[in-house]
Amino acid sequence: MSQQLTGQVLIVGTGLVGTSVGLALSASGVEVRLRDRDSGAVRVAAERGAGSAEPTSDPACVVVAVPPVQVAAVVRTVLAEFRSATVTDVSSVKREPLSTLAASVDGDSLSRYVGGHPMAGSELSGPWAATAELFQGRAWAVTPHAGSSPAAVEVVTALATSTGAVAVTMTPDEHDVAVARVSHLPHLLSVLAAAQLGGAPAEHLALSGQGLRDVTRIAAGDPTLWGQILTANATAVRELLRGVRADVDELLAGLGDDSSDRVGDVLQRAVAGTRRIPAKHGGPARAEAVVVVALPDRPGELARLFGDAGQSGVNVEDLRIDHDPGRPVGLVELVVQAPAADTLVDALVARGWSAHR
Amino acid sequence: MSQQLTGQVLIVGTGLVGTSVGLALSASGVEVRLRDRDSGAVRVAAERGAGSAEPTSDPACVVVAVPPVQVAAVVRTVLAEFRSATVTDVSSVKREPLSTLAASVDGDSLSRYVGGHPMAGSELSGPWAATAELFQGRAWAVTPHAGSSPAAVEVVTALATSTGAVAVTMTPDEHDVAVARVSHLPHLLSVLAAAQLGGAPAEHLALSGQGLRDVTRIAAGDPTLWGQILTANATAVRELLRGVRADVDELLAGLGDDSSDRVGDVLQRAVAGTRRIPAKHGGPARAEAVVVVALPDRPGELARLFGDAGQSGVNVEDLRIDHDPGRPVGLVELVVQAPAADTLVDALVARGWSAHR
Repeated sequence: MSQQLTGQVLIVGTGLVGTSVGLALSASGVEVRLRDRDSGAVRVAAERGAGSAEPTSDPACVVVAVPPVQVAAVVRTVLAEFRSATVTDVSSVKREPLSTLAASVDGDSLSRYVGGHPMAGSELSGPWAATAELFQGRAWAVTPHAGSSPAAVEVVTALATSTGAVAVTMTPDEHDVAVARVSHLPHLLSVLAAAQLGGAPAEHLALSGQGLRDVTRIAAGDPTLWGQILTANATAVRELLRGVRADVDELLAGLGDDSSDRVGDVLQRAVAGTRRIPAKHGGPARAEAVVVVALPDRPGELARLFGDAGQSGVNVEDLRIDHDPGRPVGLVELVVQAPAADTLVDALVARGWSAHR
Repeated sequence: MSQQLTGQVLIVGTGLVGTSVGLALSASGVEVRLRDRDSGAVRVAAERGAGSAEPTSDPACVVVAVPPVQVAAVVRTVLAEFRSATVTDVSSVKREPLSTLAASVDGDSLSRYVGGHPMAGSELSGPWAATAELFQGRAWAVTPHAGSSPAAVEVVTALATSTGAVAVTMTPDEHDVAVARVSHLPHLLSVLAAAQLGGAPAEHLALSGQGLRDVTRIAAGDPTLWGQILTANATAVRELLRGVRADVDELLAGLGDDSSDRVGDVLQRAVAGTRRIPAKHGGPARAEAVVVVALPDRPGELARLFGDAGQSGVNVEDLRIDHDPGRPVGLVELVVQAPAADTLVDALVARGWSAHR
């Protein structure tokens, strides 16, 4: 199964994801060709080292990295154009394009198609935002259909692995159910929180805090793209949304009845749910610790802080600045491996920082 | 109205918020006394400079900073103990404690009570996490009741202003409606997203990304505290939750009917809602820009990045590390004032960083 990817790879669509695939494959020695109907996007992708814009006649594998509504049509076109190539795509819904293809492509051609979906992206877009490292350590769903040839599945698995991702094989149906829960439904709940803000007087919104900003961040995403995704995965999303409606009813009933613990039960289930989110693919949640440091809000202070942290030898794995531009001192939360936290606190305090766990 | 705060202030409850109030007031020259039934917490607060632990007999103002369910009882006690003091609290719901007080305190005493609620906090707790700057530039809701004396309202307004906060006066009812929308409802939507994770096989959760983590972050908060808050504000939360249920029904109907634009309408309302969230109190949303930098995941690289950024003279206002420990290079997003973004990109690229807007 850990077959090497051999032969030329053609990437159709040189946006963020397509260009990142090209960068990652090129870095691992694969010969990559690029195609996009936007010649400027191809040029940028090629200049960044994602591959060559020269035509190709016999790619071993074609990666279709176009917007969701175009996927089926482009896959059909390249299956016909390259009669021996394995064809995959990177779109976030898998069942709908497959059923469109199954209705319009012969079985022999369709056996060369295996869907894919790398679980990585960005709020940014375009070839400029691409990086060779986008897929490192991320899951890449590989979704064979019943008629996919084992050889094609091996090629797409090798493709995913070659980018540094971890291939996770599941059926198209299972994939769509999974992303409905971990991506599409959370998007809708963010949307539902943001959608209620319209009815408020501006002075009520003056009371907004960080929690509101975090919950509603993804609700600012492109409504056209999200409309396409949600429509394409409507069945799985509706089923989960019915579960949400049942929980809303549970909360409404519980909030009207102090003697029950129905609200507490939902809150407890949510805490348990947050603990199920893995820290990274395949790994257990890691023991991390947070070190809090007070930081004057002026140029150079972050540099001084990280210089001092770097001297301690402790690797800072994540951080957050408690963001309030109106405040002359911020709180910086540094996430480090738990055993290293005391070392970091001691080192920072010794250098005059106000730091604690 | 911009009266100075004069006389001694007693803070009852030296947790995160109480101690931060003490630090802020002490820094602005106010004489602060501290009280907490946990003598260790008082000692820490006093050692940090939040005030003195000595007894007081005649405070001008008492700030009650205790858990929500204890607020009414403690306010009643201090109104009786200090017969000329103005008394306020800092809890996140205002109507319920007031109605409890109104039923058990004479009108003369009650005229000295004015509720308050600083819109600042942290997932951290305790006096160690307190900072003098917690309230700088934040809104502080001041919520007089019909019987509050004008003098008491002036004292509480001066208290809020003395901490660096911006006093926002509204009735207790209006406050509870406002925080239901900008705090309690978003918490519940985060909870609803997290609560659906329990039903998923672990391999589905392997597809989790950053959006899920952001939406569900606050759902990990203490269920006991949140149960108290939601129960105390049940009426306002239920009304908004009914609006959410109506939107859920709208989404369910729209997802079953491709010919309608009901889903798109909700998505558009959400985008508009996110734009209503102010960047800071009273100010317009600021023009910021994001600069993206690729960062090797090893000690010292953040220091080098911020050193180089600092040399450019551009102030980094916020940042986020795209967090994936399995990846040797991360993406750092630096938030800066929009006009400064190109300067920063040029400076970083000149020093060998892969950086772009």
